[in-house]
Amino acid sequence: MLLNCDLGESFGSWTMGEDELAMAHIDLANIACGFHGGDPLVMQRTLALAKQYGVRIGAHPSYPDRQGFGRRSMALSPTELIADLHYQIAALTGMAKVQGLQVEYVKPHGALYNDMMANESVFVSVLQAITQYDSSLKLMILAGNNTENYSELAAKQGISLLLEAFADRRYTDVGTLTPRNQAGSVLTKAEMLEQVQQLVSEGTVQTQGGQTLPLKADTLCVHGDNLEAVNAIIEIRALCAR
Amino acid sequence: MLLNCDLGESFGSWTMGEDELAMAHIDLANIACGFHGGDPLVMQRTLALAKQYGVRIGAHPSYPDRQGFGRRSMALSPTELIADLHYQIAALTGMAKVQGLQVEYVKPHGALYNDMMANESVFVSVLQAITQYDSSLKLMILAGNNTENYSELAAKQGISLLLEAFADRRYTDVGTLTPRNQAGSVLTKAEMLEQVQQLVSEGTVQTQGGQTLPLKADTLCVHGDNLEAVNAIIEIRALCAR
Amino acid sequence: MLLNCDLGESFGSWTMGEDELAMAHIDLANIACGFHGGDPLVMQRTLALAKQYGVRIGAHPSYPDRQGFGRRSMALSPTELIADLHYQIAALTGMAKVQGLQVEYVKPHGALYNDMMANESVFVSVLQAITQYDSSLKLMILAGNNTENYSELAAKQGISLLLEAFADRRYTDVGTLTPRNQAGSVLTKAEMLEQVQQLVSEGTVQTQGGQTLPLKADTLCVHGDNLEAVNAIIEIRALCAR
Amino acid sequence: MLLNCDLGESFGSWTMGEDELAMAHIDLANIACGFHGGDPLVMQRTLALAKQYGVRIGAHPSYPDRQGFGRRSMALSPTELIADLHYQIAALTGMAKVQGLQVEYVKPHGALYNDMMANESVFVSVLQAITQYDSSLKLMILAGNNTENYSELAAKQGISLLLEAFADRRYTDVGTLTPRNQAGSVLTKAEMLEQVQQLVSEGTVQTQGGQTLPLKADTLCVHGDNLEAVNAIIEIRALCAR
Repeated sequence: MLLNCDLGESFGSWTMGEDELAMAHIDLANIACGFHGGDPLVMQRTLALAKQYGVRIGAHPSYPDRQGFGRRSMALSPTELIADLHYQIAALTGMAKVQGLQVEYVKPHGALYNDMMANESVFVSVLQAITQYDSSLKLMILAGNNTENYSELAAKQGISLLLEAFADRRYTDVGTLTPRNQAGSVLTKAEMLEQVQQLVSEGTVQTQGGQTLPLKADTLCVHGDNLEAVNAIIEIRALCAR
Repeated sequence: MLLNCDLGESFGSWTMGEDELAMAHIDLANIACGFHGGDPLVMQRTLALAKQYGVRIGAHPSYPDRQGFGRRSMALSPTELIADLHYQIAALTGMAKVQGLQVEYVKPHGALYNDMMANESVFVSVLQAITQYDSSLKLMILAGNNTENYSELAAKQGISLLLEAFADRRYTDVGTLTPRNQAGSVLTKAEMLEQVQQLVSEGTVQTQGGQTLPLKADTLCVHGDNLEAVNAIIEIRALCAR
Repeated sequence: MLLNCDLGESFGSWTMGEDELAMAHIDLANIACGFHGGDPLVMQRTLALAKQYGVRIGAHPSYPDRQGFGRRSMALSPTELIADLHYQIAALTGMAKVQGLQVEYVKPHGALYNDMMANESVFVSVLQAITQYDSSLKLMILAGNNTENYSELAAKQGISLLLEAFADRRYTDVGTLTPRNQAGSVLTKAEMLEQVQQLVSEGTVQTQGGQTLPLKADTLCVHGDNLEAVNAIIEIRALCAR
Repeated sequence: MLLNCDLGESFGSWTMGEDELAMAHIDLANIACGFHGGDPLVMQRTLALAKQYGVRIGAHPSYPDRQGFGRRSMALSPTELIADLHYQIAALTGMAKVQGLQVEYVKPHGALYNDMMANESVFVSVLQAITQYDSSLKLMILAGNNTENYSELAAKQGISLLLEAFADRRYTDVGTLTPRNQAGSVLTKAEMLEQVQQLVSEGTVQTQGGQTLPLKADTLCVHGDNLEAVNAIIEIRALCAR
């Protein structure tokens, strides 16, 4: 089970996340491309860290909304969304090349990620953007509810998916994430480690409704926001041998 | 003599320049990369136009100053300048690839262009950025005053230069452009055509001081701001057979 | 019948609209506040034009989306929306004071205007923003469908409304604007002048469905995008004596 | 001796500074206005904190350079600089009014502050901006080298100055700050407390060259970047009774 983490989300004089500490323990770094977080200097430094720790890299593009950190849904036309994705993927790809690194996948950020999972037409636009750019790039999506349908759509466009599960979120009975504003939606550390253990060993999670849900996942999303989060990564890492 | 023109400088709902009309008559399109002008949609459209008219393309990167249109000098550290250049060149390169096009050169914009010509350390940073990114990219600079010294510096880094002359600007006796705020610095149309004619046939220009100055140039900078400017391109084109 | 027009929407080096020409013929200038269009210099110049022509002024605030020109709906929290409105209204109010002018009303721009008319909770947030800032400011909204309900809501908060009608748009039978993507939604010049004439003399418009709809309006929205639009203002002006 | 501190420099999802902790111990809050730091929500929250702790407020405007945090000098024309200052001062003034607060002074930020102290023409533009906006606003400048000349210039425009000294910076023999890149330019905590003590009791500082320099100051600049900095404020506060 690969561990992936959003990194490179500092901007200018503002720092965010314990990137260097987190980088030491993960497999896949989702690197912000300057639209919600990151700027050219931050991207350069994040790529250098990924290189130093031998971490594989993906583009983490967003809606063009720095003030809202890409967390607000924006009604872009498919054409504009695709252009915005090309720009961001290209910027990271080229900056990675300078350091001898290769971008392997795309993981949309924030509201774009949610919109992609909730709205098939947004998902198809994301697929088209990748197909047009480089169909060897994989697309990381949320494992669970839509997996079968989305896998078929991706296959039609020749795109491979990376299915991600969330270590620290409670799943609903239908395999979506329990909304954050509901009690119990974010797991305690003990619950999180239990969920990871069960996912790794059984391929299932216990849902909000108490059911045992099969969940096929290639990668676990972990967080590097602060020291506590990094410590959680270390404990999760122990359960997910490289 | 190749004709080059700054294009793709519209932004969002704001249009600038008669890009399509100009594209039909030039050889080299300097395409803005989103920092002073351009956005992903504009870049996509400008690349499509270049493809349609078979025009070769270059990246036209800038200081990060959209409100000032990249026309204000900014004291960036070499590291930041190089990162900003990589980001912009990479974004355009990747978007060009989507359309089967290849970026061939870099022409810095506005204040960055002026700073590069006035300040050797900025010029060296630009060279380093290109060397690190892809040393087959050429760098377009102002022909005249600094050419010999700058050619040597570029050669050391393995970068080829494209020397550009200005059709519509009066040169000083030392081969710099007469500052815009001086009378006679911008040529009338008749003077401009005369200057182009002399440059093409003799390889010289008449300076502000009345001297005949040898000026070795690979390309002429023309403008597509409005219909009048495009008409000037057409007349210049007639003097510079493809 | 007062004529109102969106102005001051240029940005940096990009110009938009024939502001000076339009200013000569209108009563109310809706001035962009820097979020979708306008910047401090543009605001200063637009205020100076309003002063020169004796035109009353209103703030024309927007969602924070310059690239999308404020035309994309964004899911801001009420708190953030109110803060964004305060910031923009305050910036214009203070810059107006420098020139001895007073902002008299607020007209939300683009997607925020549409959201306000479609979603009562957004409308209430706008009202709260104004009440908190200065309840003597009026709020300009679309006359028609929601007028009665919205007038009551505004009255509760002590805010007066300015009801605006559109000269060049066909109304539906329920008093909304026919969506732009429908045939006939934008009137020809002859139809427009007929609609203005009828509105001024009878207080009614002919709807898409052929009905005669009473439409109480304080002001007509006109456009200053280009010379043709300005000429239309002049003809409308002739029908709406000051 | 009043303590002043730069606050409200968070932006969107990025936090900066221990604003609430610092606010409890200072007299004057220099509040960012959205150009280098701050956004409408951050400004609203910072104003609420100032109100809660009874702290007087000033506008802390900047060059328009968020990515560079206003720390890069930008060659703005006087007209543009004045418009940018009006916009920022107005935005904060209006948002303060909503909370029943009044902006009392202006302290330019970063590169603009440095440019103002180094370049008389920038200083005069800042004065003009304030005179035009509201000449009852004071202007905070660096006490020391230029005080006499700058006081005369300010007096001519009817503007009162607030002279600020730096608790933690070593002064040169001519009363400027020793550049940060020189050894000993930033004082240790013990040196800092000694300098504050001497300044409060004697009205002098010991310079880099070992001289005793008279320094007339109305306010001391302190920092709230982190817990350590806040602790330093508390110790300085003990030496500067309210």
